[in-house]
Amino acid sequence: MSKNRLIYLPLGGAGEIGMNCYVYGYGPKGRERFIIVDLGVTFPDMGYTPGVDLILPDIEWIEERRERLEGIFITHAHEDHVGAVGHLWPRLKAPVHARAFTAHIARLKFEERGHDELQIRTAPAFPEMVEAGPFKVGFVPVSHSIPESSALVIETPAGRIVHSGDFKLDRTPGVGEPFDPDLWAEVVAPGVRALVCDSTNVFSPRPGRSEKSVRPAIEKLVAGASGMVAATTFASNIARVRTLAEAGHKAGRSVVLLGRAMRRMITAAVETGILHDFPKVISPEEAAQMPREKVMLLSTGSQGEHRAATAALARGKYMGLSMQEGDLFLFSSKTIPGNEVSVARIVNQFSEMGVEVVDDEDGRYHVSGHANRPDLAEFHRIVAPQFLIPMHGEHRHLRAHVALGEECGIAGIIAPNGAMVELTGKAPRIVEHVETGRTYVDGHVQIGALDGVVRERLRMAQNGHVLVTLILEDDEPLGEAWCEIMGLAETGISRSPVAEVLEGDVTQFLMRAGRKTLADDERLEEEIRKIVRRTSQEELGKKPEVTVVISRLS
Amino acid sequence: MSKNRLIYLPLGGAGEIGMNCYVYGYGPKGRERFIIVDLGVTFPDMGYTPGVDLILPDIEWIEERRERLEGIFITHAHEDHVGAVGHLWPRLKAPVHARAFTAHIARLKFEERGHDELQIRTAPAFPEMVEAGPFKVGFVPVSHSIPESSALVIETPAGRIVHSGDFKLDRTPGVGEPFDPDLWAEVVAPGVRALVCDSTNVFSPRPGRSEKSVRPAIEKLVAGASGMVAATTFASNIARVRTLAEAGHKAGRSVVLLGRAMRRMITAAVETGILHDFPKVISPEEAAQMPREKVMLLSTGSQGEHRAATAALARGKYMGLSMQEGDLFLFSSKTIPGNEVSVARIVNQFSEMGVEVVDDEDGRYHVSGHANRPDLAEFHRIVAPQFLIPMHGEHRHLRAHVALGEECGIAGIIAPNGAMVELTGKAPRIVEHVETGRTYVDGHVQIGALDGVVRERLRMAQNGHVLVTLILEDDEPLGEAWCEIMGLAETGISRSPVAEVLEGDVTQFLMRAGRKTLADDERLEEEIRKIVRRTSQEELGKKPEVTVVISRLS
Repeated sequence: MSKNRLIYLPLGGAGEIGMNCYVYGYGPKGRERFIIVDLGVTFPDMGYTPGVDLILPDIEWIEERRERLEGIFITHAHEDHVGAVGHLWPRLKAPVHARAFTAHIARLKFEERGHDELQIRTAPAFPEMVEAGPFKVGFVPVSHSIPESSALVIETPAGRIVHSGDFKLDRTPGVGEPFDPDLWAEVVAPGVRALVCDSTNVFSPRPGRSEKSVRPAIEKLVAGASGMVAATTFASNIARVRTLAEAGHKAGRSVVLLGRAMRRMITAAVETGILHDFPKVISPEEAAQMPREKVMLLSTGSQGEHRAATAALARGKYMGLSMQEGDLFLFSSKTIPGNEVSVARIVNQFSEMGVEVVDDEDGRYHVSGHANRPDLAEFHRIVAPQFLIPMHGEHRHLRAHVALGEECGIAGIIAPNGAMVELTGKAPRIVEHVETGRTYVDGHVQIGALDGVVRERLRMAQNGHVLVTLILEDDEPLGEAWCEIMGLAETGISRSPVAEVLEGDVTQFLMRAGRKTLADDERLEEEIRKIVRRTSQEELGKKPEVTVVISRLS
Repeated sequence: MSKNRLIYLPLGGAGEIGMNCYVYGYGPKGRERFIIVDLGVTFPDMGYTPGVDLILPDIEWIEERRERLEGIFITHAHEDHVGAVGHLWPRLKAPVHARAFTAHIARLKFEERGHDELQIRTAPAFPEMVEAGPFKVGFVPVSHSIPESSALVIETPAGRIVHSGDFKLDRTPGVGEPFDPDLWAEVVAPGVRALVCDSTNVFSPRPGRSEKSVRPAIEKLVAGASGMVAATTFASNIARVRTLAEAGHKAGRSVVLLGRAMRRMITAAVETGILHDFPKVISPEEAAQMPREKVMLLSTGSQGEHRAATAALARGKYMGLSMQEGDLFLFSSKTIPGNEVSVARIVNQFSEMGVEVVDDEDGRYHVSGHANRPDLAEFHRIVAPQFLIPMHGEHRHLRAHVALGEECGIAGIIAPNGAMVELTGKAPRIVEHVETGRTYVDGHVQIGALDGVVRERLRMAQNGHVLVTLILEDDEPLGEAWCEIMGLAETGISRSPVAEVLEGDVTQFLMRAGRKTLADDERLEEEIRKIVRRTSQEELGKKPEVTVVISRLS
């Protein structure tokens, strides 16, 4: 009988922020039973993944072993943790476990895609545990920027693992359970073999502040405003949305929720019993009839998302409401790297309207949901694991987090996506490299990141596209070649239409071409492509993508 | 005789950071004589301007009046101030004035494009003045992050204007003239009608620090390193490059300049007499033969530019040199908004190699070249203008800068690109809105931002591209339609090749189509486009761009 081993394998989220997907396995090599922790997405980017709707982890490795998959555990309802569950579940078909709020969100995703909602099981909190093959998994409430976030206690025959999920140490989180030292004492009492830990804020040197700390500043700001007030934050940050709404209410304002996610999240929080005391909400139509100084809008789109309510307000109007000179707009949020330009665009649009924009500046109106460097060190001391495996970070975060662990005397290992770590030995070690990658959701279909589809799009966008059609009859050109250009200037340095110059050069080539060339589609295409690129380079200084369509009559 | 008026008209740089181009005019309305201050570029972005090489201001307005243009004055040699001078000069053909270092850089641009270098005139510093029609222009040395930056004193019959250029108040700038209160007393002595002022750092609340302040931290960092050290900053920041080189030299390291801009800028600084005492430089080949701990690389590409030396080092190798575990890489720079993702990619690549990356963090290794909020307030007090016109900022910066001026008791006006401001009245007022925009340099040609070329590229990138070719003989289809797809998945929900499904649907339509439709190219194209989009939507969930090529034989 071969030796049982405990393994950890990130398929997404380690070496990037987003698209979280972590596999744990236990059993003899090649016969391990598995669980997955989180199935998240990451978001596309116009520059690198144009036209793509969503990016999922490549789960092929675990899909091929799905008969040994015991369950999928979701730590919390952020899209980078739960977002892929609807898209990928049909390829995995294992039960999904999550606490009530997260399960509610996951069920909405199953509903949208017609999957069996009974496969989503609402899990109790630790100390109760969910059994899944050789694993017992407990959901330990932690504070984050969404309700019912959980760390997972993963009990295995080879020892206990703490998978932190996304977390911070908050004694006054506003919504949800505060950080509870007694509960954590219980979690770690049997000793912890490995801590798999959130690395997002390892570069933030100061201790994190509590969600509670933003309330006075927000209340003061809203109380001092004279026109309409609007604020944006992540809709899933229920504590923050409530703080904002209450600040409005306290200042005698009626609250309006703008954007689908905002309404959906508040509804989810009410239906799952998390939110009891949200101020009364009015509709945009009602708000439009009220004096501006009596209204407080809470809108989606804090990251500058083009289709969200905030961007629409910045462009001019949303649901009959618009901002104007003397109004106030608050970003109660941090701009995620990569979104700076989109957010700045919105701020400038509001500025043009005369709207005063207040952003996070020095963290007065926003606190992070992740543990900062000193909090991570505190958490390391609390959990006191044998090994530290940083996750939820780019490579630089993982590296810095291992170094931080070593400062606390804990041996760590950098395990980026695809690095299978065995945890059963004296020290964690990488025993295998599994191929990982990204899958694009593109309209109705899923395409591999390396399939070349997006590469073609980028090439057309960078270089333009020239189409050449020609007709041959008995291997003789019938008429002239025809060129169409897309994404290229119409005239180049010769001042003649580029399409005509190209047609001239291709036609000239055809007239000179030998019968053998004319009979050979492949060679003909290649030669025409070369001519088009050379002429375009001369005329425009660009080497376009070229598609040649040859029709043969006989 | 009509009244003379003094006008200010930003064609670029007001409402954005980049692409600076400001026009001043004096004379009777419609017969003003003009000068231009700065002719800069802004940089394209894969997401919004794919394939574009550079972005220039649209200068049509002043081009149409170029017989009244007296001169072009360049404040300093940053690309957002001088970068368009080579591209746009042929459309303006007025003499270009700049101080020696800037003139040197401008001449290199003229040389590249074959323009007459004699049109670039080296200007002396204030109190000497250059005459240009009704204007006298003095170059007042200011500190910035490049040598010989200047504010301009623009003397007109209607009063004196101070055009700040990019500046900070630095008493110990390292290279170039320190801030000189006596000189400024002289500048403002006759009274200043308007201050046109840099707004970049209006949101930075703390007083700016001197260039000198980074030296001890850099020296300490380099002295403490045990492997190879590499550092990046803007090549044009001669003071910083020298500080870095001297820190290397002091630590017993030989200095290597990597990247064309680095060598070009240092050469320019030596040739124009700005730099006398730069440490001895060795070649990459020599460095490759030396012990790692004896080498200090200074590389271009602090903003993550893909083709620059830093990105090449991060990918693995540049000029035979490569970084490895135990080496140190310093970003002595700030990441410009929009470049975060590119810079983070490089940091992660170095992290994967085991290279320690040190970035700016709390400004220990970098200081800004622009005046912060308190420094702007101090400058307002020094210049004591009647009016303040903020420039060099997005709209939100201009707005905040006007508010800051008002705090100092100075009346201001927000004048974004295209807003012509008359400065001859009691208060500045916008008298006309001129159409402004952007011109793309795309390979060899210049295209208007609104010409639709880039829009076509974006559409192909977002939606993919389908080509349909069909041949008709005497208004009857000859064979079947042919479809090619670019940037789309090959198979959709029916699992058949998408191109075949499309061909089937188009062919079916052609079989059913009436003679009248078949005889009408336009209608045929429109119908086929509709069918292709509908079928693609069903199969792929995407509505592609469609090009239809119809060939008719008869």
